Amino acid sequence: MREHLDVLLHDWLDVDTLFSRERHAEHSRETVGAVLDLAERIADERFAPANRRADVEEPRFDGERVHLPESTRAAVAAYVESGLLAASQDAEFGGLQLPCVAEMAANAFFSKASVAIAGYAMLTTGNANLIAAHGTPAQRETFARRLFAGEWFGTMCLSEPQAGSSLSDVATRAEPDGPGHEADALGPRYRLRGHKMWISGGEHELAANIVHLVLAKIPDETGRLPPGVKGLSLFICPKFLPGPDGRLGRRNDVALAGLNHKLGYRGTTNTLLNFGERDGAVAWLVGRPGDGLRCMFHMMNEARIAVGLGAVMLGWAGYEASLEYARQRPQGRPLGAKDATQPQVPILRHVDVRRMLLAQKSYVEGGLALSLYCARLVDEARTGAPEAAADARRLLDLLTPIAKSWPSEWCLEANSLAIQVLGGCGYTRDFPVEQYWRDNRLNMIHEGTHGIQALDLLGRKVLADGGAALKLLVTRIDATAQRAGQVAGLAEAGVALAGALQRLGAATRSAWATGDAEAATANATPYLQAFGHVVVAWLWLDLALATGASRPGTLAATRYFYAYELPKIDAWLAPVARREALVRELDDSCF
Amino acid sequence: MREHLDVLLHDWLDVDTLFSRERHAEHSRETVGAVLDLAERIADERFAPANRRADVEEPRFDGERVHLPESTRAAVAAYVESGLLAASQDAEFGGLQLPCVAEMAANAFFSKASVAIAGYAMLTTGNANLIAAHGTPAQRETFARRLFAGEWFGTMCLSEPQAGSSLSDVATRAEPDGPGHEADALGPRYRLRGHKMWISGGEHELAANIVHLVLAKIPDETGRLPPGVKGLSLFICPKFLPGPDGRLGRRNDVALAGLNHKLGYRGTTNTLLNFGERDGAVAWLVGRPGDGLRCMFHMMNEARIAVGLGAVMLGWAGYEASLEYARQRPQGRPLGAKDATQPQVPILRHVDVRRMLLAQKSYVEGGLALSLYCARLVDEARTGAPEAAADARRLLDLLTPIAKSWPSEWCLEANSLAIQVLGGCGYTRDFPVEQYWRDNRLNMIHEGTHGIQALDLLGRKVLADGGAALKLLVTRIDATAQRAGQVAGLAEAGVALAGALQRLGAATRSAWATGDAEAATANATPYLQAFGHVVVAWLWLDLALATGASRPGTLAATRYFYAYELPKIDAWLAPVARREALVRELDDSCF
Repeated sequence: MREHLDVLLHDWLDVDTLFSRERHAEHSRETVGAVLDLAERIADERFAPANRRADVEEPRFDGERVHLPESTRAAVAAYVESGLLAASQDAEFGGLQLPCVAEMAANAFFSKASVAIAGYAMLTTGNANLIAAHGTPAQRETFARRLFAGEWFGTMCLSEPQAGSSLSDVATRAEPDGPGHEADALGPRYRLRGHKMWISGGEHELAANIVHLVLAKIPDETGRLPPGVKGLSLFICPKFLPGPDGRLGRRNDVALAGLNHKLGYRGTTNTLLNFGERDGAVAWLVGRPGDGLRCMFHMMNEARIAVGLGAVMLGWAGYEASLEYARQRPQGRPLGAKDATQPQVPILRHVDVRRMLLAQKSYVEGGLALSLYCARLVDEARTGAPEAAADARRLLDLLTPIAKSWPSEWCLEANSLAIQVLGGCGYTRDFPVEQYWRDNRLNMIHEGTHGIQALDLLGRKVLADGGAALKLLVTRIDATAQRAGQVAGLAEAGVALAGALQRLGAATRSAWATGDAEAATANATPYLQAFGHVVVAWLWLDLALATGASRPGTLAATRYFYAYELPKIDAWLAPVARREALVRELDDSCF
Repeated sequence: MREHLDVLLHDWLDVDTLFSRERHAEHSRETVGAVLDLAERIADERFAPANRRADVEEPRFDGERVHLPESTRAAVAAYVESGLLAASQDAEFGGLQLPCVAEMAANAFFSKASVAIAGYAMLTTGNANLIAAHGTPAQRETFARRLFAGEWFGTMCLSEPQAGSSLSDVATRAEPDGPGHEADALGPRYRLRGHKMWISGGEHELAANIVHLVLAKIPDETGRLPPGVKGLSLFICPKFLPGPDGRLGRRNDVALAGLNHKLGYRGTTNTLLNFGERDGAVAWLVGRPGDGLRCMFHMMNEARIAVGLGAVMLGWAGYEASLEYARQRPQGRPLGAKDATQPQVPILRHVDVRRMLLAQKSYVEGGLALSLYCARLVDEARTGAPEAAADARRLLDLLTPIAKSWPSEWCLEANSLAIQVLGGCGYTRDFPVEQYWRDNRLNMIHEGTHGIQALDLLGRKVLADGGAALKLLVTRIDATAQRAGQVAGLAEAGVALAGALQRLGAATRSAWATGDAEAATANATPYLQAFGHVVVAWLWLDLALATGASRPGTLAATRYFYAYELPKIDAWLAPVARREALVRELDDSCF
């Protein structure tokens, strides 16, 4: 995997140009390499061996404390000690100012070794990034600094039992905390009362404190909560209040109401939290009232790319495990040489096993290309020249639903194929592939379900700025297709890509032909699937052009994707293009 | 579900004509209905409530005994007491001589309520059917009768640790048991020595005895085992030897070496068995030496249809659970009416949730139609007029890989969609859908993997008798397509079906155009997928023609299948048709 990452970063994504920019001037191919070495080592030594135990010894709440395996604690501690929590952050916070794409590459090792244990760090970084971006200097100093140092850990508290995907229905109340509440050194002080559901990392003892970022609503003068998402504000609400001299103060009024018992991803605690069972949980406003969702979504692109990357690396882990099994397991004989007196051959020799492995490769390496391409856009948006940065932001907004959804769907499929390669063994808990499959099933659900990504893409992103982002993407894809036309062995793929792009564009226009949003988005999910396959086909071809004959595996996976995968888009696009209304118009009694 | 079964049996599959045949003369719509009522009641009262416990309290081996939950025992006992084990068997064995299709319909209730607990009964019936068909009168009397009565339970022992799918490599030895071995009342007596892997129901105390049907090889005069599958013979090897007066004799030399710990389907014990750790396990030959595989495969069609039915009913259970959730769970508002002061609507109102439910319906009801259509062919093969029976046998042989594989793949997908409808709740163990998904993942593996079904179909079944079975299927599908042409609202589907059938036929011919089996079958799995979708599209249309406007849900699901599913076949058929050699010719270093 390391070699593959190097190729993506240096031969394809041209990460080296970033080192000439001020923010990354301390970095070089060597420093990035050293970070990847470090990540790989900790992941191999601490995360991978702890992964099964984190699944089997599910978090347990004894009424007072949540218990996790010691190996989980040790893995997390090693991560904190590495300094990687602040890898891409400002030096101000002890950060390394690493490009985002390099940080993502480093995190790939942890996600592959144990996606659930890595979850604590990802949540903490996301939380700290948000406070660093939107907090006051005092909030940054008190919270973000300690989060980046790994002294405290973080969560994001959005969902509630009655409001999962529908954030306008959040009912957690934030009341001003007394007359002097505006004057608190940490920002306007409130008391929270409400219930937050599906909170990952919501309780544990891996760090001294847990900093919750909570969406809540400030009641108006009549005491009513403002309706809709515009009424949402963002608050910092720590488990323990910050005390004098950097010590912990008293326990805040945040209580664990229960742990969720999950299908997979068990190493990450997932909780129902009660805010304000007694006198209200003390919390400080971040940003302005009503700005909560904007602040939260500021970090959402990166969070969603990270979810996609987690899905990719679970797929990758399954691919590695099933490839190793296929190389070693003797079973059966070639179709043309069934002489039973001859020894059995490794199952890698069977064409259907090869097909399942090549499919996995095309999903997981394609998915990694997608994740890192998007992370590279984050870097460009941050440090590129103005026009390039604006383009990168546009493309990133457009591609984020794909970066999140495509690996969630297809690297889950890769995990299913890994089970299939192992056969009966794959179905037992003596092999790791069944856990990868269970873990990966979460990724189509959290951080915005598949259906929500689809609506975001077709209902919003392709329309944004009069379709400017989509035009930009089309230009880039077309450029790749054109270049491929000049290269022997890839010209046919170039033609196929250009044709697919055209059909995608036609379906997009057709979907919106009447301007009726309900009609246009009635088939948003098949559209998302087709869009994702076109994007990944494009990235495969672009990568194949960059690496050429030096990487026969890349060429083979590219050909596989064009032969077996890209043709799937037509079945998905057909109902989109004709605004198929069957599902929408169906009477409820038909189910 | 019951109403749906009645429609399939009586309005579509014309089961009533079977009652005029001698074998089923005691039966009527009423007796079949009574059996279905009984099955539904036992399944609801005993199986469904025991299903989660069978998963959570996994079978445990304490070194002497295997422990199962009491609720599993009670469910199995209720099944035995119902007499359904011999539902389709001869009256000679206390059987009801029910048509196979009616027995399958009854079993659907058990598979839906707890596929893993139902496994014991299915295995026992399969085992007993085989002995009834191939055993001597004494074997039938001693073993089959007790199996049908549920006094003893049965297993099928094919796989070995070094021989999973490759039965030619079976190494279990069967040595003649002394000079008088030919003269034993129960048949030629042998001693078995070997290891059998993946044996479902291989150890438990749900019945007084366990009758293993074991594939083993009789050494030649030099002591060597004959190579290949032609050397396989079939043996009856009980856990306890039959004693005098119908009592149990001494414990046979069959030992539990270990339980497999599975991803799902945990209620059925799955074992590694050692035969002959001491003096060899006593066993009696069934049929002739070398006839083992033929005897075993005699029952394989029904076993594979039963696996398919199990997959269907897991899908059905998930569909029911997610539909109920979608009707009751309020969340969000319609796209066109986002006023957050209005109450939230049930998620059934969201078009993407509806899409996921209709997709599930099209998979599970389509799958049930497929299972019962094949079971009806079993009846026709048994009791039809000679020509009709021969046709039914041909079609059944051709469709069996589809009946096994299609539900395994698509009703698993249905289970994934059920999880997705429930969102975060679906990912927790507080709801049943995650278990259905885990349970269902087995079905693409056992009783012949997906890849093996694919080779069976494209490498053998479509060629058999000069393609006679395929021609027959084409005739039937074409007839349905023609009939649809005359019916308003279905004519378009008829045209689509005829076109799909033509493309499937062309791909079949093209695959075999060079006569090279390796080239022809290099894309057998995508071929299997396309074939399955064409068959299910056909059955949907045929069913819609039979039920017409009276079943708007059937019409909707048919339209869904034609709008969203059938178009998928072209992406699968393209590599088949051009004998895509990429995977086959790939160098191993490319992975």
